[in-house]
Amino acid sequence: MKVSNDMKTFMPLKNQTIMKKLILVRHGESEWNKMNLFTGWTDVDLTPYGMCEAYMAGRLLKEEGYHPTMCYTSYLKRAVKTLNQILDAMDMDYLPVEKSWRLNEKSYGALQGANKAETLKKYGEEKLMQWRRSYDVQPPALDIDDKRNPRKDPRYDSVSDAELPATEALCDTIARLMPYYEGTILPAFQQHDEVMVVAHGNSLRGIVKTLKGISDADIVGFNIPTAVPYIFEFDDQMNLKNDFYLGNQEEIKKKIEGVKNQAKKK
Amino acid sequence: MKVSNDMKTFMPLKNQTIMKKLILVRHGESEWNKMNLFTGWTDVDLTPYGMCEAYMAGRLLKEEGYHPTMCYTSYLKRAVKTLNQILDAMDMDYLPVEKSWRLNEKSYGALQGANKAETLKKYGEEKLMQWRRSYDVQPPALDIDDKRNPRKDPRYDSVSDAELPATEALCDTIARLMPYYEGTILPAFQQHDEVMVVAHGNSLRGIVKTLKGISDADIVGFNIPTAVPYIFEFDDQMNLKNDFYLGNQEEIKKKIEGVKNQAKKK
Repeated sequence: MKVSNDMKTFMPLKNQTIMKKLILVRHGESEWNKMNLFTGWTDVDLTPYGMCEAYMAGRLLKEEGYHPTMCYTSYLKRAVKTLNQILDAMDMDYLPVEKSWRLNEKSYGALQGANKAETLKKYGEEKLMQWRRSYDVQPPALDIDDKRNPRKDPRYDSVSDAELPATEALCDTIARLMPYYEGTILPAFQQHDEVMVVAHGNSLRGIVKTLKGISDADIVGFNIPTAVPYIFEFDDQMNLKNDFYLGNQEEIKKKIEGVKNQAKKK
Repeated sequence: MKVSNDMKTFMPLKNQTIMKKLILVRHGESEWNKMNLFTGWTDVDLTPYGMCEAYMAGRLLKEEGYHPTMCYTSYLKRAVKTLNQILDAMDMDYLPVEKSWRLNEKSYGALQGANKAETLKKYGEEKLMQWRRSYDVQPPALDIDDKRNPRKDPRYDSVSDAELPATEALCDTIARLMPYYEGTILPAFQQHDEVMVVAHGNSLRGIVKTLKGISDADIVGFNIPTAVPYIFEFDDQMNLKNDFYLGNQEEIKKKIEGVKNQAKKK
């Protein structure tokens, strides 16, 4: 299946068959996005620009009449704060929010904190693109004694050693995401008509891959822009009827191109 | 029982009998606090000062080594955002948060939006002090057609007509708070050693009244300062051993005096 980001189906369907909506949002710009470092599970903050991007996404959702009643996010500050900004802009700070480590970004293992351009110079484009864009090649793992290892972080105390990653390929990220997506997020539609998930480039790829039936080979080239509401519309049997990015389509295209070219910066 | 705000027990006990801690925080300054209006269930925002107050409370909790693992707040923006700021300052954005309308501020009914000083002039000090400071006198109720009536707000759709207040005396606020305090917050200590509740002057009065056995007559004069962590320490049988405000005790005294004198401003 050929997948493009050309958003040919960007208009919401105006008929009665739409019963359920899933709103996906990738977090706004983080400090390390800006510095062009591999982030992964490092708990870096949003930039002021990222905070505004997130607020604007909430404003747009409000203007377009969205009204989620259940929200999910990761254990990472940049996603939680993006969701908080969105809810504040929607005047829906009161909505229930559930946080899960399973929605975290892909772990970049020992690359976390390394500059993307320097990593490119050091390892070459082929190796780097494998780590960034292959489906099943893991970056070098974090040593158990490395202070960056999530085993040292009390927020993951309840996660077993077997499940807590020291590095991940995209397929690993999707594998640990799926129990939460299938066991918690999808069942939420039994009680909720609109559900919002604010997470990360790679955890959201997992959800989009499943929803749109994208192949392993194609999902690695599928780029989700930051802080743009990505709407999935379903009928009452949860058959996907339509999906589109909300907002100015030209600006969204530019944002997607920006994600693609990230490693070449600096 | 005579209750004073003199904080004679302001030092944490340094021994092994403390097993559990409850952290209460009243939200930071809101737009309507600043304008000296009755707020109640009106969903007004924090001021920039209120946002900073909240962040500073989180910074203090972090410096003093607090580590809650479960948080509760109300359905009102000023409490949710105070909690968000505290968690951000503590680098604990990932903590689970549960929101409940039962932690909302006391409803001031038809007084909501009225200036406190003008209400003083219009109704006289006796009437006003009854509404503000009596245990069981309700302010005038909101009409069912009033746009301020919470029945018109979808966030309260799941609350029955019988439970949704059009006005409240302090005893009503405490009565609707108690099922949540006893049924959800207290039982959380079976799984958690530290629990944080960020709420409002009057809903927190309900919790403090129960914990300290304060009389109906005395609780109305018990003033909780904004954005100051109020710590309750228990033994493993949940017997209260100690309670104190965290921070500079002289500044906290000034804050408490500020709350007392609020109606006289302007």
